[in-house]
Amino acid sequence: MSKMANGAPQTNGVGDTVPLGLYLWTRIKQVGVNRIFGVPGDFNLTLLDHIYNVDGLEWTGNTNELNAAYAADGYARTMHGAGCLVTTHGVGELSALNGIAGSMTEQVRIIHVVGQTSRKMQENRMMIHHSIGPSPDHQVFNKASVNFRVTAAELQSEKGATEEIDRVLRECYVKSGPVYIFVPIDIVDLPVPAAGLTKALDLSPPTDPKAVEAAADAVLSTLYASKNPAVFVDCLVDRHNGTSELKELVSKLSCPIFASNMGKGIVDETNPNYLGVYNGMVSGLGVAAAIEASDCVFVVGSLASDTNSGGFSRKVLPENTISLDANSTTIKGKTFESTPIKYLLQALVSKIDSSKVPSVAIPKLPPRPQEDDASSKAVTQSYLWPTLASFLQPHDVLFGETGTAAFGIPDSDFPCENIQWITQTYYGSIGWATPAALGSECALQDLSAAGARPRGRTLLVTGDGSMMLTAQEIGNMVKQNLSPLIFVVNNAGYTIERVIHGARQSYNDIVPFAYEHLLPFFNMPREQAARNFHRAATKVELDAVLALDRVRDPVGHGKGPQVIEIVVDMMDVPWRLATQVGTRGPEAVREMREAGFKVRDIEHGTGFWS
Amino acid sequence: MSKMANGAPQTNGVGDTVPLGLYLWTRIKQVGVNRIFGVPGDFNLTLLDHIYNVDGLEWTGNTNELNAAYAADGYARTMHGAGCLVTTHGVGELSALNGIAGSMTEQVRIIHVVGQTSRKMQENRMMIHHSIGPSPDHQVFNKASVNFRVTAAELQSEKGATEEIDRVLRECYVKSGPVYIFVPIDIVDLPVPAAGLTKALDLSPPTDPKAVEAAADAVLSTLYASKNPAVFVDCLVDRHNGTSELKELVSKLSCPIFASNMGKGIVDETNPNYLGVYNGMVSGLGVAAAIEASDCVFVVGSLASDTNSGGFSRKVLPENTISLDANSTTIKGKTFESTPIKYLLQALVSKIDSSKVPSVAIPKLPPRPQEDDASSKAVTQSYLWPTLASFLQPHDVLFGETGTAAFGIPDSDFPCENIQWITQTYYGSIGWATPAALGSECALQDLSAAGARPRGRTLLVTGDGSMMLTAQEIGNMVKQNLSPLIFVVNNAGYTIERVIHGARQSYNDIVPFAYEHLLPFFNMPREQAARNFHRAATKVELDAVLALDRVRDPVGHGKGPQVIEIVVDMMDVPWRLATQVGTRGPEAVREMREAGFKVRDIEHGTGFWS
Repeated sequence: MSKMANGAPQTNGVGDTVPLGLYLWTRIKQVGVNRIFGVPGDFNLTLLDHIYNVDGLEWTGNTNELNAAYAADGYARTMHGAGCLVTTHGVGELSALNGIAGSMTEQVRIIHVVGQTSRKMQENRMMIHHSIGPSPDHQVFNKASVNFRVTAAELQSEKGATEEIDRVLRECYVKSGPVYIFVPIDIVDLPVPAAGLTKALDLSPPTDPKAVEAAADAVLSTLYASKNPAVFVDCLVDRHNGTSELKELVSKLSCPIFASNMGKGIVDETNPNYLGVYNGMVSGLGVAAAIEASDCVFVVGSLASDTNSGGFSRKVLPENTISLDANSTTIKGKTFESTPIKYLLQALVSKIDSSKVPSVAIPKLPPRPQEDDASSKAVTQSYLWPTLASFLQPHDVLFGETGTAAFGIPDSDFPCENIQWITQTYYGSIGWATPAALGSECALQDLSAAGARPRGRTLLVTGDGSMMLTAQEIGNMVKQNLSPLIFVVNNAGYTIERVIHGARQSYNDIVPFAYEHLLPFFNMPREQAARNFHRAATKVELDAVLALDRVRDPVGHGKGPQVIEIVVDMMDVPWRLATQVGTRGPEAVREMREAGFKVRDIEHGTGFWS
Repeated sequence: MSKMANGAPQTNGVGDTVPLGLYLWTRIKQVGVNRIFGVPGDFNLTLLDHIYNVDGLEWTGNTNELNAAYAADGYARTMHGAGCLVTTHGVGELSALNGIAGSMTEQVRIIHVVGQTSRKMQENRMMIHHSIGPSPDHQVFNKASVNFRVTAAELQSEKGATEEIDRVLRECYVKSGPVYIFVPIDIVDLPVPAAGLTKALDLSPPTDPKAVEAAADAVLSTLYASKNPAVFVDCLVDRHNGTSELKELVSKLSCPIFASNMGKGIVDETNPNYLGVYNGMVSGLGVAAAIEASDCVFVVGSLASDTNSGGFSRKVLPENTISLDANSTTIKGKTFESTPIKYLLQALVSKIDSSKVPSVAIPKLPPRPQEDDASSKAVTQSYLWPTLASFLQPHDVLFGETGTAAFGIPDSDFPCENIQWITQTYYGSIGWATPAALGSECALQDLSAAGARPRGRTLLVTGDGSMMLTAQEIGNMVKQNLSPLIFVVNNAGYTIERVIHGARQSYNDIVPFAYEHLLPFFNMPREQAARNFHRAATKVELDAVLALDRVRDPVGHGKGPQVIEIVVDMMDVPWRLATQVGTRGPEAVREMREAGFKVRDIEHGTGFWS
């Protein structure tokens, strides 16, 4: 790669001034981003040049802008940092918008850099390509994303630009969400003061130490006074980087631990106190009763969307709840502000007196019911998910796409420590997981190269419906020589929609792919592609594929992505999915049964759907 | 396909009331839409059911929502009517947004139906999946599209819904742009009055007949008084359905005719008075001088973006101009409002006295310069475009994707009548053309089935860079058994970006596809796929492919899409593209030459870029 930024210094050496573009990328590298995703366009090319002048920063282009946004999201989740993408004015930034919105609602840190038209073009409302109508307002695209970002730097001058860049990068970390940086093309190479680059940005959230102390004391006195405490782990504790502190805290407790759909795996599921996923009425046998009997539930990092709360059927009463949220703590209705979850957990760990903590007998839950398809030779949903779970290894990053995967995987406890489970269960934008898995693989490469964690594997579990939307990003995995495991549940359409409505309507059919041609189409040499493609329609075949060295160890023994097509019946669904749909009310249950889906008995739906 | 809409009548018979969903689709069918594009989602499934209850209306699902928007755009352009897509709340509508924005700025009629969350969910700000944050405003997605649509029906009750639907459908046609119809899921099946369905919607634009008369008289007296009139045809006359009237008018004139990049082919280029594309300083030899010498230029349907005006270098003076715009007419600075272009042209045709029209000697333009690559055996850009042009047949619909195609094709006159040339030269969103070509094929099927026009062929000319973004829609062409000709200029990356900046930077590389595997991957049987794939790296090979029966007549002799990969050197560009970039100024010319691109001499750039 050449080093050719217009007029930029050829090294990272910091003089009195640097071009604005170089300042931007240097700062982004400083806050922990090593990869820049995106798509080039007329209005970001000179900006992209400066990436090559920052040591350790790498351009990883994507196959389209939506995929770039998804890739940055996956990168950020696996890094526990930020992801960054660059798009071009209008066409690029709008194409990425749905991915950004997903990161917003799931509180994933994204830095979206947009190369804009020049200030003169903007001022004169020139009809430059990508604009809207005659006498175009060039800022209409910027306005479209205003509800899907934490903040934005709308740069219109090199003056004050460094402060604005610094401000939004800090906000990205503190608020854990997307930020935009708009850079008109004519200011990319203007000089800005370099002095700021010598001082690291403060990325810590605003904290009231006294409130943290007071909240911790109040939490602990409530805990000490309780009879049978419990812990309920949800995803936002991980998003706000409190996972290691939470693990330390639960090691000092002796009480049942539960997770939400999205919070699975944050506390190791090998912990003997772990009892499974609590999702209101969409929970395993005995789980709901166990947590709902607690007089003191630590609800840690809650994200209570319909899909993550059993259709709003969680029954943990506020008077029995200690809520540890991103930046506040609520105990029996009293809230302490400015208590970032990470610091609050640190305070709890340092203050806790284990001798005062009630020791709760861990209930023995009833065994899982035997599924009536146990004798099937074909791969069934009830066979698939525990089998995949037993395949996991420590340091795996496991993506469950919205669909049967996101509802099937939560039915099995992870058999080892340090599994990172990633779903997009609140936003639920199908297609997200494939590019996100690319981002994750990039993050694993970067982290393991830096010695920051073992390499681990990325497991993408998706469906034939979801993969269709963003499949070209697998070509990028081939190009980048990444080694994810790609499990495709091929069940002939949008099964998650069939179970909701229109089971046999043609709108739930998809465009079928012949997966054996996927890797060759994406330019993998034929012999390698033949080795890397696997199909399993029976349990025996699935077991055999999972025993292959290059599947068990795709980084060490494989080369490039491994694609495992798993053929599953169109009308076979995880019980958690059917039950989740059943929470919508009795009418939903009736419709599923009439269509031919197996549905477990549900006492009553919450009826929130009607 | 089953007929299962909840509680809907089983026929199109109109009782006192019909379910709102059935009203909507019946109305959409009535205004000329036969296909519904889109992607199913939780909040539109019951709405989709009603499609199946409207005779002649067909669901044609897409591989993702952006592709659906592009497909609807291509459908609308070929139909000269409207295209329609359905998406789901949030994730779906945002994914489609960039496609909608393109339709907005290019004045293409789109009906975007969005299945929303229920009113109760909206009122209670429930954390339903696809929403943004805690206590979500469910209308944030609606707000994001406000600048990219003509109007919207934000339905919140079945009362008044039919009037709102009728209003926005009319606006879609009158203003020629996208409209949104938001349908909360809980009102889909509510009864609405059916009476409106018995009366056709008035889709004609607001007209002031006296103004039309006055404008026509003023136009004609100016014409009669002129010495050497000329006609300059741009795309908006076609978008506002004035093409047949314009053709009739020019048949009564005897003066030179020119077209813009985007207006090519609207007047048949076999017309002996047609002199070629006028694009300011990016024009063929003698063209600019010929039109700029006119004392009376009919500028018909102008869309003067940078890319369609030679970087704003058109030199037709206002005092020599008669502007026929979508809804107004301007003569030497005086404007007549409410004169829709179609009606104004009709008035001109009926009023014109041919004996008073000056007869202009048609200048003989100098021959095209011989390219210095004429002896190359490899396919060159200068060989490719005239060769493709000579391959055209009457009633072809030709898509030129943004890239070398959009700048190469305008260099050749079309050799026959009734060629529809479709580009997206103002919005310029790469990836658009592939799904748009699917929409076009659907339109050609529908129109020819109705006897409304000869079947014709869809020719998609795209590049390896652009195709990457939206390639999965080719799978849908296979599924739908459509027969487009897909020409892929494989020149190893984003050549249009290389010529602008960073010719050899890695950001202008792409994810390479192995095109021989494209059709098999999209599930075309192997033998058929082998017949339907063609590669040409030399001129001889290209000529041979174009002579094949199944390529000349893909509908009659072929079956399914034909893919023709054309290998072209990475640094070979149409002179019109290099010259267009050169209009940015001398610095742009210098950079292109330093990078190794051939650039013709340009007197001086307009310098609009700096």
